[in-house]
Amino acid sequence: MFKNTEITFLGTATSIGVPVIGCHCAVCSSDDPKNKRLRSSIYVESEETKLLVDTGPDFRQQCLREGIDHLDAVVFTHEHTDHIMGFDDLRRFTVYEEEALQIHATESCLGRLKAAFSYVFDGKNGYRGYLKVKPEVIDGPFRVGDLELTPLPVTHGKVETVGFLFSREGERLFAYIPDAKVLSAEAEALIEGIDLLILDGLQPLPHNTHLSIPESVELVERLAVKKTWLTHFSCRVDYRELEPGLPENVHLAWDGLKLEV
Amino acid sequence: MFKNTEITFLGTATSIGVPVIGCHCAVCSSDDPKNKRLRSSIYVESEETKLLVDTGPDFRQQCLREGIDHLDAVVFTHEHTDHIMGFDDLRRFTVYEEEALQIHATESCLGRLKAAFSYVFDGKNGYRGYLKVKPEVIDGPFRVGDLELTPLPVTHGKVETVGFLFSREGERLFAYIPDAKVLSAEAEALIEGIDLLILDGLQPLPHNTHLSIPESVELVERLAVKKTWLTHFSCRVDYRELEPGLPENVHLAWDGLKLEV
Repeated sequence: MFKNTEITFLGTATSIGVPVIGCHCAVCSSDDPKNKRLRSSIYVESEETKLLVDTGPDFRQQCLREGIDHLDAVVFTHEHTDHIMGFDDLRRFTVYEEEALQIHATESCLGRLKAAFSYVFDGKNGYRGYLKVKPEVIDGPFRVGDLELTPLPVTHGKVETVGFLFSREGERLFAYIPDAKVLSAEAEALIEGIDLLILDGLQPLPHNTHLSIPESVELVERLAVKKTWLTHFSCRVDYRELEPGLPENVHLAWDGLKLEV
Repeated sequence: MFKNTEITFLGTATSIGVPVIGCHCAVCSSDDPKNKRLRSSIYVESEETKLLVDTGPDFRQQCLREGIDHLDAVVFTHEHTDHIMGFDDLRRFTVYEEEALQIHATESCLGRLKAAFSYVFDGKNGYRGYLKVKPEVIDGPFRVGDLELTPLPVTHGKVETVGFLFSREGERLFAYIPDAKVLSAEAEALIEGIDLLILDGLQPLPHNTHLSIPESVELVERLAVKKTWLTHFSCRVDYRELEPGLPENVHLAWDGLKLEV
């Protein structure tokens, strides 16, 4: 019998997080811990594997909060700043390990990482304390330990973006799609009827590059998803105000929430 | 009579901060708030001017902690990751302001910012929420409001690095040099006998690219600096252990410390 796989929400915010710097709205001024959000990221721990999705600027804080001290791989959904700028703080995971850290990203996202953190990739990296990575381009399903990851192509503005379907021994565990406006037909087919989906639900109102909460609710109903946790919120999402109005099988995630699958 | 100028230490750490991810040393495990350090940065507020030095990855946290909601300019000491990767979070300072935010950096540092945050500089930046900047290359003294800044060239590994001398009406207020192994003769001449210096003091032991605490103490004694606050610490610096052994006019800074000049 396998140990369950645990998903930890490291952050559930879009853009620069909630509270937003200089914003005095009700949510940004709220004391509710479920309205305090770092940049979106999840940590997945299975029987054999410790895996991170995205390294936003809050990555250090998130590691310290959750006591993360080992990673087998890091996978990236896309190259936006709020998903990659904590990349260098991964250096702590290759100080004492012999092996470079495995990272998986689309070609476009890898290009952006190389531009922003050239010293990690240029081969001149002599210091022991520096981050050492083994980059792999995402061009189809891949495996990290006992986890199988299938990229889920989505439309999210102009930037090549994927979500991930996580499986083990060919059985679907859950899918994570933090940034999307439209899911590809391929992605929809892969997650139809899935037990657990974590999905972009930026805010109540429509947005050019993100699913709104009503759009996400419609989508998961159409795809007969059994349970959905929305994430990647702006400060237009007041947890206590919006959670009660959602369908029974759709919820708003929060920072620190842990789920078992 | 001018209002005094206030300096706030937004962060006093090197590298990835203290506690260090995955480190279980006495300082990283310490409860002492003076041993908890975000990446080095200061905020300077004078009669007329609000100015930030460096935007490390903790910049959002630092803004929220100190309630910073307006900036007249941002100046950069150098291009290392721990001093620039929070750059995009400056976007909140140009959402409601008509003008682009003035930033000052050496040519090398500006090049690194352009590589990492190309969308801020490429002129295709159409979204209202995106950061808009007016970059200026540091090639000599410059002015921001009522503050005069003189770059202080220093040696810090292979990367072009400066500190800054802050003056008002031709009178020296203080100097800030968070990263340095050796000060240039020019920098030494500019800060000799100064009332207040904030200086790199990485750790008790020598380091290739940073002044150690004993080296910094020797330096400020030689330059007859009246009062020195050390900053940019690793987790080898235990506040309670090391502060008592310092000369009377040399102190260890901490996150949140405010000084008036």
